[in-house]
Amino acid sequence: MKYPVNLELFADTKHSPSIFELTASMNGKGAGRLRDYCIPVNPYFPTPQMFDSLRSRLETILKFYPSSNQDIARRLADFVGLDPDTLIIGNGSTELISFINRLLVTESIAIPVPTFSRWTEDPTLSGKRVHTFLRYAQNDFRLSPGEFVGNVLRSGARAAVLCNPNNPTGALMPRGDVLRVLEALRSLDVVVIDESFIDFADEQVVPSVDRDVKRYTNAVVLKSLGKNLGLHGVRMGYAVTNPELAQRLQRALPFWNMNSLGQALIEELPQHRDEYEAGRRQVVRDRIYLEDRLRTVPGIHVYPAQANFVYLQMPDGIDGVTLRNRLLCEHGCLIRECGNKQGSDSRHYRIAARPRPEIDYLVECLTECLNALTPHAPARRLRPIELAMWAGK
Amino acid sequence: MKYPVNLELFADTKHSPSIFELTASMNGKGAGRLRDYCIPVNPYFPTPQMFDSLRSRLETILKFYPSSNQDIARRLADFVGLDPDTLIIGNGSTELISFINRLLVTESIAIPVPTFSRWTEDPTLSGKRVHTFLRYAQNDFRLSPGEFVGNVLRSGARAAVLCNPNNPTGALMPRGDVLRVLEALRSLDVVVIDESFIDFADEQVVPSVDRDVKRYTNAVVLKSLGKNLGLHGVRMGYAVTNPELAQRLQRALPFWNMNSLGQALIEELPQHRDEYEAGRRQVVRDRIYLEDRLRTVPGIHVYPAQANFVYLQMPDGIDGVTLRNRLLCEHGCLIRECGNKQGSDSRHYRIAARPRPEIDYLVECLTECLNALTPHAPARRLRPIELAMWAGK
Repeated sequence: MKYPVNLELFADTKHSPSIFELTASMNGKGAGRLRDYCIPVNPYFPTPQMFDSLRSRLETILKFYPSSNQDIARRLADFVGLDPDTLIIGNGSTELISFINRLLVTESIAIPVPTFSRWTEDPTLSGKRVHTFLRYAQNDFRLSPGEFVGNVLRSGARAAVLCNPNNPTGALMPRGDVLRVLEALRSLDVVVIDESFIDFADEQVVPSVDRDVKRYTNAVVLKSLGKNLGLHGVRMGYAVTNPELAQRLQRALPFWNMNSLGQALIEELPQHRDEYEAGRRQVVRDRIYLEDRLRTVPGIHVYPAQANFVYLQMPDGIDGVTLRNRLLCEHGCLIRECGNKQGSDSRHYRIAARPRPEIDYLVECLTECLNALTPHAPARRLRPIELAMWAGK
Repeated sequence: MKYPVNLELFADTKHSPSIFELTASMNGKGAGRLRDYCIPVNPYFPTPQMFDSLRSRLETILKFYPSSNQDIARRLADFVGLDPDTLIIGNGSTELISFINRLLVTESIAIPVPTFSRWTEDPTLSGKRVHTFLRYAQNDFRLSPGEFVGNVLRSGARAAVLCNPNNPTGALMPRGDVLRVLEALRSLDVVVIDESFIDFADEQVVPSVDRDVKRYTNAVVLKSLGKNLGLHGVRMGYAVTNPELAQRLQRALPFWNMNSLGQALIEELPQHRDEYEAGRRQVVRDRIYLEDRLRTVPGIHVYPAQANFVYLQMPDGIDGVTLRNRLLCEHGCLIRECGNKQGSDSRHYRIAARPRPEIDYLVECLTECLNALTPHAPARRLRPIELAMWAGK
C-alpha cells in the first residue's frame, strides 16, 4: 500500500471518515498527501487575500465572544438581499436540520432517497417515523412535482424534505416546480427545500425559492454557507422562512451558535462578491469537465448533475468498496462510495468537482484501478501513455 | 467623548454588546482600542506558538468537515483523563445549556441568583418555570449545601443548577459540599454543576466533581473550554455525566457541532499542558492583584472571588450605568454592569482579571471617574500623581 490508511475507519460511521482521520491513521507514512474527492469544497474561495486577513486578525477574532445569532443574521441578510426577519443563522446546516427535526417535525417525515443522510438519521434518532421513496436512475433521479407531492401525501407524513439539487445525485427541480410543490403541500406541518448546493447548479444563477417561502406558513429553505464558501470546517448555514417560524427557530437555537471566525467571514463577504461569483462559475465549469472526463471511462455511467459533484455508477462486476479502497490506498484518492446511503448501493459513487489537474489525476487512477479490477482484464499493465490515450486525453 | 461608542447597543440585549460591535460603532474615530474587562478571557493561552501553528494550517483546518462530536470527545477525554463514555462536546457551553434545558429539564428549574443569564433565559424561552432564590451579599454570596438543597426542595422544581464558582459573584462551594448536594438531590430529574470557571478558582487546583458525577443518575458537570483556553470565539465546551445520559445528549446534538478550529486546538493541547498550567496560575495571580488594587479605591466593596473575575459594589450615590458609560466613553474601558441580572443591580460590576498594567490602568480610570461622579467631590480635578497616591500606589 502506497497510502497505508486504516480502512477500519470506514466502518465507524454513517458518513465518510474525515480526511484528517485518514491522514492521521497513516502515521506519516504515506507517499504524499491524500486528495479529497469526497467533500465537495469550493477551492476558489475564500481568496488568498481573505485568508491573509483572517490569519492576521486570528487572535482578536478568536479571543472574544461572537455577536448573537440575530446580529450576525442581520448582516448576512443584508449581503444576500433578504428580509432579516426571515433569516436564521446556524452552526452549519446540520444544526438547522437538528432543530427543524426537533421543533417542526412532530411525528413523521417523507423524503426521497438517496439523500443527505442527516435528513434520515436525525429524525430516526429523535423517534420520528421516516417515510422514504425512491428517485429512479432511469429518470436521472429527477422527480416531477406531481411524483413528489403524490408520494408525500400517500405516506401520510406531516413533514417533507426536498434536497434541491439533490445530494448525492445532483438532480434539480426547477423553481416553478418547487413552487407547485409548496402550493400542494400547504396542509403539512413543514416542507423543507434544502438548497445547500444550488449555487453550483449552473453557470447562470439558478433561482432559489428563498424569496418565496415567506408566503407560506410551513415552508423553510435551507442553505449551507460552508459549502458555498468552501469552508466546511467553520460550520455556517442559514434557513429562510416566514417571520413567525423564523422567530420560533431563532429562540430555540443556542444564543451564541455561530463562532467568531464565521462572523468575521460574513463581515468580509460584501467586499468579495465578485471573487465569489468568479469562483462559483469556475466550480461549475470544473464539474462539467469532470462529467466529460468521466464519460470517457469505459463502463462508467455518469448521471447529469447540477451541483459541485457528480453521481455515477461503476461497471457490472466491480465491487465498489474494493475499488474505493484501491483508489485510496494505491493512489491517495478519497471518493464517496454510497453503499451506506438508503436508495443507493456500493456501485454508486459521488465525486466532488476539483480543479482540472486533480480531475485528470483521478480519472487516470480510476481507469487504472478499473482495468486492474475488471474480470478478464489484460494481464499486461497499461503504460501511462496508453492509459491517457485510452481515456481520450 | 474620547471613545464615541454607540451606547444604544447596551439596550439591545440581555448580554453586553460584544467588543467588536462597540468598536465598529465608533467608525474608526476612537482615541485608541477599547479594553475589555467584561469578558473573562485567559490572556496567556493559547501561546503565540500555538497561534502560529493555527495560522499556518488555517486553510487546511477550515476547508474540511471536522470529525464527529464523538471522535473529538474521545480525544478531549484522553487529555482531561476522563472516561470517554461520560464526556460530550458542545459548540460552547451555551449549546449544552440549551440541550440540557430542552432534553432534561422537563417542567421547572431552580437556581440561585445572580447567575449566568443563559441559565434563567433559556428555560424561560422554552416555557419552563424558573424558581430563583437569592445568594446574599452578607455571606459573600456563598451558599451552604443545606441552604441550596432546602431552597431547591421547597421550590418543588424537578431540576437545579449550581454555578460553581458562581458567575458573576465568584463564590465557590467546596467539592465535599457539592457532593452533599448531589446526594440530597438524587430524586430530581437533573442537577447541573456548572464549573465553567473552576480552573481559575485558586493557584492550587480546586477539585472538580467531574469524576464523581457518573455515580449519579441525574448529575451533569458543565465545563467551558472557551473560557479556560481563552478563546470564547471558537465555541467549545463539554459536559460530563453518566454514560446513559451522555449518550442521550450526544444523540440529540447536531452531528458536526464542533468546528474544525476547535478540533485542531483540542488536538494540540497535549503538547501544551505546561503552558496552560502556567497561564492558569498567572490568571489567578492577576485576579488576586485585581482584588487588592480595587480594595484601595475608597467606597468600593470587593467580594472575595474564586474565579478569573471580581464582583464588586460601587459606593452609595453612584449610578452604575453612568459610571460604566463614563469608563467606556472617556477611558475606553468596557466593564460588565450587572443591572440586568436577576438578583443583582446596576451598582454591581463584574470585572475580568487582566495582566497587571491593564489592571493599573483600569483602577486609575475608575478612581478618576468615581471622583468626578461622587456628590460633593472637590471641584479641582486631582492630578495623576495625587490620584495614584490616593489609590495607595
